[in-house]
Amino acid sequence: MAVVLPHTTEQVQQVVRYAGANGIPIVPRGAGSGLSGGASAVEGGLVVSMAEMTHVEIDPVTRMAFVEPGVINADLKEAAAAVGLWYPPDPASIGFSSIGGNVATNAGGLCCVKYGVTTDYVLGLTVVLADGTALDLGGPRLKEAAGLSLTKLFVGSEGTLGIITRIVLRLVPQPPPSATMVATFTDLDASCRSVLAIASTTRASMLEFMDNVAINAVEDVHGYGLDRTAQAMLIAQSDQPGETATREIEAIAAVCRELGADEVLVTADTAVGETYTAARRGAIPAVESKGRLLLGDVGVPLPELGALVTGIAGISTRHDVVISVIAHAGDGNTHPLVVFDPDDPDQAARAEVAYGEVMDLAIRLGGTITGEHGVGRTKKAWLGDYVGEDVVRLNRTIKDALDPKGLLNPGAIL
Amino acid sequence: MAVVLPHTTEQVQQVVRYAGANGIPIVPRGAGSGLSGGASAVEGGLVVSMAEMTHVEIDPVTRMAFVEPGVINADLKEAAAAVGLWYPPDPASIGFSSIGGNVATNAGGLCCVKYGVTTDYVLGLTVVLADGTALDLGGPRLKEAAGLSLTKLFVGSEGTLGIITRIVLRLVPQPPPSATMVATFTDLDASCRSVLAIASTTRASMLEFMDNVAINAVEDVHGYGLDRTAQAMLIAQSDQPGETATREIEAIAAVCRELGADEVLVTADTAVGETYTAARRGAIPAVESKGRLLLGDVGVPLPELGALVTGIAGISTRHDVVISVIAHAGDGNTHPLVVFDPDDPDQAARAEVAYGEVMDLAIRLGGTITGEHGVGRTKKAWLGDYVGEDVVRLNRTIKDALDPKGLLNPGAIL
Repeated sequence: MAVVLPHTTEQVQQVVRYAGANGIPIVPRGAGSGLSGGASAVEGGLVVSMAEMTHVEIDPVTRMAFVEPGVINADLKEAAAAVGLWYPPDPASIGFSSIGGNVATNAGGLCCVKYGVTTDYVLGLTVVLADGTALDLGGPRLKEAAGLSLTKLFVGSEGTLGIITRIVLRLVPQPPPSATMVATFTDLDASCRSVLAIASTTRASMLEFMDNVAINAVEDVHGYGLDRTAQAMLIAQSDQPGETATREIEAIAAVCRELGADEVLVTADTAVGETYTAARRGAIPAVESKGRLLLGDVGVPLPELGALVTGIAGISTRHDVVISVIAHAGDGNTHPLVVFDPDDPDQAARAEVAYGEVMDLAIRLGGTITGEHGVGRTKKAWLGDYVGEDVVRLNRTIKDALDPKGLLNPGAIL
Repeated sequence: MAVVLPHTTEQVQQVVRYAGANGIPIVPRGAGSGLSGGASAVEGGLVVSMAEMTHVEIDPVTRMAFVEPGVINADLKEAAAAVGLWYPPDPASIGFSSIGGNVATNAGGLCCVKYGVTTDYVLGLTVVLADGTALDLGGPRLKEAAGLSLTKLFVGSEGTLGIITRIVLRLVPQPPPSATMVATFTDLDASCRSVLAIASTTRASMLEFMDNVAINAVEDVHGYGLDRTAQAMLIAQSDQPGETATREIEAIAAVCRELGADEVLVTADTAVGETYTAARRGAIPAVESKGRLLLGDVGVPLPELGALVTGIAGISTRHDVVISVIAHAGDGNTHPLVVFDPDDPDQAARAEVAYGEVMDLAIRLGGTITGEHGVGRTKKAWLGDYVGEDVVRLNRTIKDALDPKGLLNPGAIL
């Protein structure tokens, strides 16, 4: 029906009250970069865009950020960096996703293997409930035990319980410069065993995986001179202070060599390290240049990573669609990219089936259907298979209690 | 009415179903060490004690712990340490509080200034709901975005939403040995300004405060030779790798010297460091030897720490009761210990009033009435003053949705 661009919490309250009185559904929207359709407009509804709510305030003394939901992740990082601080969560979309969306989906990223996910940095929220009430939950305090953990309940709620209008975030000091390693493997399984060994014995600040499809896609676009025959590439970083980073990255390199990597490069130079990580950072756009993508984010317990990657290769073969796997390997969270030609309806249909089978496989391996993108509208058919009907019912109980008319982001999650 | 000691989730389900069918209230209880009365029995009710559910399993490969709720915090730490891992949350009660209780209250401790609180380590829970359904929420995965954040909702719920029967925790590698500093101050305000400066410029792994009453109480009991005239003592640690710890602790010492500390001692020797921290670790029992305690845990934004400590001294004078302040200063969380003689009804009444006024003061300073102990039964009269009636109503909405008969820990929080 319309897009509304509020500037204040009070304006959000007015919109919600109007919608409530008239039975109009509301879809809150950050930057619209979500990958599960959680911010997609619904028929006859209002989209409440946070694009105009972009105020950022950093308190360097208490190391906290007070931000409005429309702030782009990278802009927050930049404001924090200006005073020597760091907001760790780093979804690949840092340049164009909003903090409000990051909180609504409990976004992750590359740093999470060491630094955790969005919820670990959220200390307080202002939310507008379905009846238009605005609440301050939590606040600028590291410890809070007064009543139910409502702040954390709203993190990851994908706009279905209320609209987030202000966020208090914990910041940490900027980490020291990183040492970086890149290793290529002919043996896919050896790369997965290396991931497990590295994660069990070191404290890498980044541990990423790219498969052969991704390596070749990056090579096609950028021509970095990567080994096109490699079945897997691992990119790791350590940001320990002083010489410890070099020692840790050498330990990581030693694991890869011992488990059969073909080529292992190590650098303590951050500029050289940037060139090693460039391939990973450019991987999703490179694969996207091959066709349209269905981009998943299934995660498994780390010992099952090899089984997941191998199983996805089987799904790819069975349905004759390209699936590239790029992964935040260190935390078990993977991005299977199902590539298809939108003008080929048969291939598009096979891609949809493959996308679903990847989630079925993750569930069988004890994993999650979504580690960092949220359920939104694209994964809700799998939610029950994953969490079970009793947990779906508990989601529904809370949703109904907070939004009895069902006007907040209807059709998302449930 | 009775104490029940289940051994399994299924037995908890049986108890809950029996209680539900017969309208009997249930109070879940870990080790009974809570300081807000959250595990106190209610008239005609069942106490479900977790004392028999003490299984611990550590997976060193994925760095996770699978524990039953009756496990004592120190026993988990020991099991983790045996394979080089660490469970950070360290309430002063580590030796006798249970992990189930720690999760139910979102317990904190000394390490939180750097390492966060209990919720930051909880990846999954098994809970038995009021209708006897058992649910697995979350699990052994660092990233999870499938549906509402139910795992986090149960953390800090103090047994009012369900009974926790199994917990999946994230572990981290053991930190390097700590360097330690202790500093004494004649000027109380200078000690608080030092806390703020240290917290803003370093990454201390511990930053604790003791006032003159606590110093003298410890000296009375232990005779360590502390300066009885000091108005405040700060104890700080750094656990950065290698030489970085020494550099950081020297930076912390420099702040204290510059802001007017009388005596500053620094050591990189962990055994000597233990002697420095012994005074802090023995402080609450030492103050307790002076009388019965009302032990609070109010927290404020760090710039208000001085105002809180000074204001508490005023409350002490006004009501003629001893109040000692011991604090996890680095995260703004304090323990005002109101000391009274239980055989002196007038003094006991004044102590109660003072205990409440400390919470009123914390609220006025933008702080919380409870940072790490929970609301339980002793603080619920202040919950509305702190969070506001709209937030209390939202707590109630969720409580009623999950426990419509109100049988789970009735009278706690709400």
